[in-house]
Amino acid sequence: MIGTAGWVLERCDDLTRHSSRSDALERVYLSPEHSAANTAVRAWMLDAGLDTETDAAGNIWGRRAADGTPQQPGTPGEPALVLGSHLDTVPDAGRYDGMLGVVLAIAVAHRLRDVPLPFALEVVGFSDEEGTRFGKALLGSCAASGQWDPAWWEQTDAEGITLREAFARFGLAPERVGDAARRPEELVGYLEAHIEQGPVLESADLPLGYVTTIAGARRFVLTITGEARHAGGTPFSRRRDALVAAAHLVTRIEDLARATDCLATVGDLRVEPGAVNVIPGRAELTLDLRGRTDTGRDALWEQIAAVGHAIARERGVTFEAVETHRAPSTGCAERLRAAVATGITEATGAPSGSVLGLWSPAGHDGMAMAAVTDVGMLFVRCRDGISHHPDEHVDPEDVAVALDAFTAAVLARAEEAR
Amino acid sequence: MIGTAGWVLERCDDLTRHSSRSDALERVYLSPEHSAANTAVRAWMLDAGLDTETDAAGNIWGRRAADGTPQQPGTPGEPALVLGSHLDTVPDAGRYDGMLGVVLAIAVAHRLRDVPLPFALEVVGFSDEEGTRFGKALLGSCAASGQWDPAWWEQTDAEGITLREAFARFGLAPERVGDAARRPEELVGYLEAHIEQGPVLESADLPLGYVTTIAGARRFVLTITGEARHAGGTPFSRRRDALVAAAHLVTRIEDLARATDCLATVGDLRVEPGAVNVIPGRAELTLDLRGRTDTGRDALWEQIAAVGHAIARERGVTFEAVETHRAPSTGCAERLRAAVATGITEATGAPSGSVLGLWSPAGHDGMAMAAVTDVGMLFVRCRDGISHHPDEHVDPEDVAVALDAFTAAVLARAEEAR
Repeated sequence: MIGTAGWVLERCDDLTRHSSRSDALERVYLSPEHSAANTAVRAWMLDAGLDTETDAAGNIWGRRAADGTPQQPGTPGEPALVLGSHLDTVPDAGRYDGMLGVVLAIAVAHRLRDVPLPFALEVVGFSDEEGTRFGKALLGSCAASGQWDPAWWEQTDAEGITLREAFARFGLAPERVGDAARRPEELVGYLEAHIEQGPVLESADLPLGYVTTIAGARRFVLTITGEARHAGGTPFSRRRDALVAAAHLVTRIEDLARATDCLATVGDLRVEPGAVNVIPGRAELTLDLRGRTDTGRDALWEQIAAVGHAIARERGVTFEAVETHRAPSTGCAERLRAAVATGITEATGAPSGSVLGLWSPAGHDGMAMAAVTDVGMLFVRCRDGISHHPDEHVDPEDVAVALDAFTAAVLARAEEAR
Repeated sequence: MIGTAGWVLERCDDLTRHSSRSDALERVYLSPEHSAANTAVRAWMLDAGLDTETDAAGNIWGRRAADGTPQQPGTPGEPALVLGSHLDTVPDAGRYDGMLGVVLAIAVAHRLRDVPLPFALEVVGFSDEEGTRFGKALLGSCAASGQWDPAWWEQTDAEGITLREAFARFGLAPERVGDAARRPEELVGYLEAHIEQGPVLESADLPLGYVTTIAGARRFVLTITGEARHAGGTPFSRRRDALVAAAHLVTRIEDLARATDCLATVGDLRVEPGAVNVIPGRAELTLDLRGRTDTGRDALWEQIAAVGHAIARERGVTFEAVETHRAPSTGCAERLRAAVATGITEATGAPSGSVLGLWSPAGHDGMAMAAVTDVGMLFVRCRDGISHHPDEHVDPEDVAVALDAFTAAVLARAEEAR
C-alpha cells in the first residue's frame, strides 16, 4: 500500500528494472533508462497527490500546494519545502543509494496529502548525482540550483557523445537549461533521506541520524615520471622507477591520513609503458581526500604533497599534482538539523539528546542545492556500510522508522514555520 | 663499403625503414615489414658471398662452405658455425638490439669470404626473439633448435590472428615448421654479437666483453584481492584496500632484491575497479626476476612470496601468484667464451687477462640454440645502457672494434678446430 515501508522497498525493487544492463543495475543521465525511471516515478507522484513536471535538465518534480491541492511544480506564490534525492546510479549499483530517498519522499507526500502545511511541498528525483556518464557529478542539482556551467556542454561520455548531443537525443533543449533553475524565494529548504554509505550508525546500533556537514572532496591526479628502461639491463643504481616511487607514496598517504580524521584514497594507478620486462617510466595516481572540516582536509593535502616531493627528490623522479575537483564542505542548516533530530526522536522514542549527528564523507545533491536554499539530511543505517555495490542493503524496520521520522521532520519544520 | 663499421651502421639505419609505424620502429614476427627486412638482409648476404634461404619459420639464413664457396644453408656434410641475432623489434624500438648482430655477422662473413675455414659458416637473422606479437619470445630460434611447441599455434596477436593463420598469410606452411629444426651434428656452435643493454661495459670504460651466462627470467602475475568500497563511506579500520597492500609489496620487492645480485621489476600494476572514489578491490602486478644464478633468483622469489603472504595476512587481503614464464640460465660454452675473449684481445690490444666476462640479465636467441649446439656471445658497449628505446646508441668506434673482434673470434674458433 502506498506510503508504507513495504511500498517503499517494492518501488526500489521496481526501479532496478530500468537498467542498461541485464545482469546489473546501471542507469545514467539522459539514457533511455533515465526516461523510463522518470515515467515510473511520475506515476507514483500522481498517486501521492502531486502534480508533476520534468524540468529542462531531466529532473522529475512533483508538487502540492500548502492546502494539499496538487499543483504544477514551481508554481509561484507559496515557497516549497523540497524533499528528494537522485535516480541515477553508478555502474553495477545497489538499489537504495538515491532511489530510497526519492521513494521515501513520495511516501511522505502521500502520508501528508490531507495535511495542510505552511508551505508547498515538492518532491524531486534528480537526474544526475553520481556523474557516471559525463564524469561531472551533480549535474541535475546544479541545473536546479542555477549553477550550470556552459563549459560542460562539450564533455563527452565513453562513446564520444557530448552532453549537448545527449540533451537533444533525450528531447531536451540545451539552450533552455536555465529554466530548470530554482530561485531562493521559491524555496523553504531541501531535505533528503539517504543511506549512510558508512558504518557509523550500524556501529552505534541506531537506525537513523541527522547530518551535520556534507564534506567536500578534493581530488587530484598525481603523476610520477621516471625513466622506462630494460628490466634486465638496468641495475638498481641506474633506475628511476616511477612505480616504486608511486608505491612509496601510496603507503605514506595511508599512514598520513590514518593519523587524522580525514579519509584519503588512491582509487586508481596506471603505469606506462606497463610491460612485464620494462621498468615503469610513468605512474599516474588518483587521490580522493575528504575531511570533517575543510581545514583538516587541506592540511592533510599539504603533508601528502610534501611527501610526494620528498620521494621524488630521493628517487630522481618528478612529482606533479593537478587538482581535478574541489568542493567546500556544506553545513546543514540549523533548523533543518533540528527538524530531522525532532523527527528521529518522535519516530524512535529515543531521548532527544541521544540523537546522533554525523558528517557525510560522501557527496550529495544538497551540496548544490545549498546555493539557493537551506539543506538538511536524514541518514538511514545500511548493512556493513556498503554502497555503490549490488550488496547495498537496508532493513525494512529501518525504512519504516525512517518514513516516520522523515514525515515527522517535515511536520517539525512546518511547526517552526508557523 | 661492405664489411666496414660504416657499412654496418648504415645497414642498421636502412632497416629502420621496414617498420609498421611511420613515427617509430616496430617490426614484428610474420608482418609485411618482417618480409621486407628479410629481403634486404638476403641481398646483403648475397653480396657477402653467401647463398640464402628463408626457413620454415621465417628465419633468413646465408651460408658458405668451408672453402668459401657460396652454399645452400643446411647443406649436409660440413658442420657450420652460425653467426647471427634477430631482426624483430619491440614497439618503439632502437635500431641496434638484434639488427646490429645480424649485420655484423654478414660483415664478418664478407671479411672471411676468401679465407678457408675448418667448418662451414652460416649467418642467421632470427624472425622472432622479442615475442612482441604473440607474447611468446624466441619463436624463431625455438623453431631453429627443434623446440617448437604445437600449443603455440593457437596463440593470438592483438587483433585475434592466430600464429597458425599468421604463418599462412606470410606464405609459410604451419605443418612444415619442423623443417626449420637444425640438428646438433650440423652445427659447430652459435655465436652472437649484441649490444649489452646494460651499463657495465660503459662503467668499466671497455668497448667489448664476452658473456659468461645468459640469465633465465622467472615471471609472475601477482594478484591481491581486497574489497572495493566507497571511498567516502569506509573508515580505515574497515578497509581491505588491494592497492595499499600492493604498494607495500612493491616497495618490499625492491628492498629484497637490492640486498642480492638479482634484479626484480614490477613492470605493470592494474587496479580494479579503478575509479577515483572507490577503494581498490583488486590489484594485479607483474614481476620479472633475473639473477646471475638460478639458485639466487629462486631464493629471492621465496622471500618475495613470503612477504606477499605476510602483507596479505596483516591487511585482510589475499595474495596469489601465478608463474607465467621460467627459463633456466644458459651458460656460454667454454671454447666460445675463449674464442670471443681471444677476439677481443686481438682487436683491442688489451692484455688477455683483462678481458671482461659478464652475465646477461636480458634473454637472447642463444638460450634456445643451446639445446642443439654450443653458444657464445660478444657484448658491445651501448650508451647509458639504454635499449628497447629509440635512444639506443652505439659508438662507430665500438662497432669497428666489435667487427674486428667478432672476425678474430671466428678465426680463433677455427684455430681451435684445426
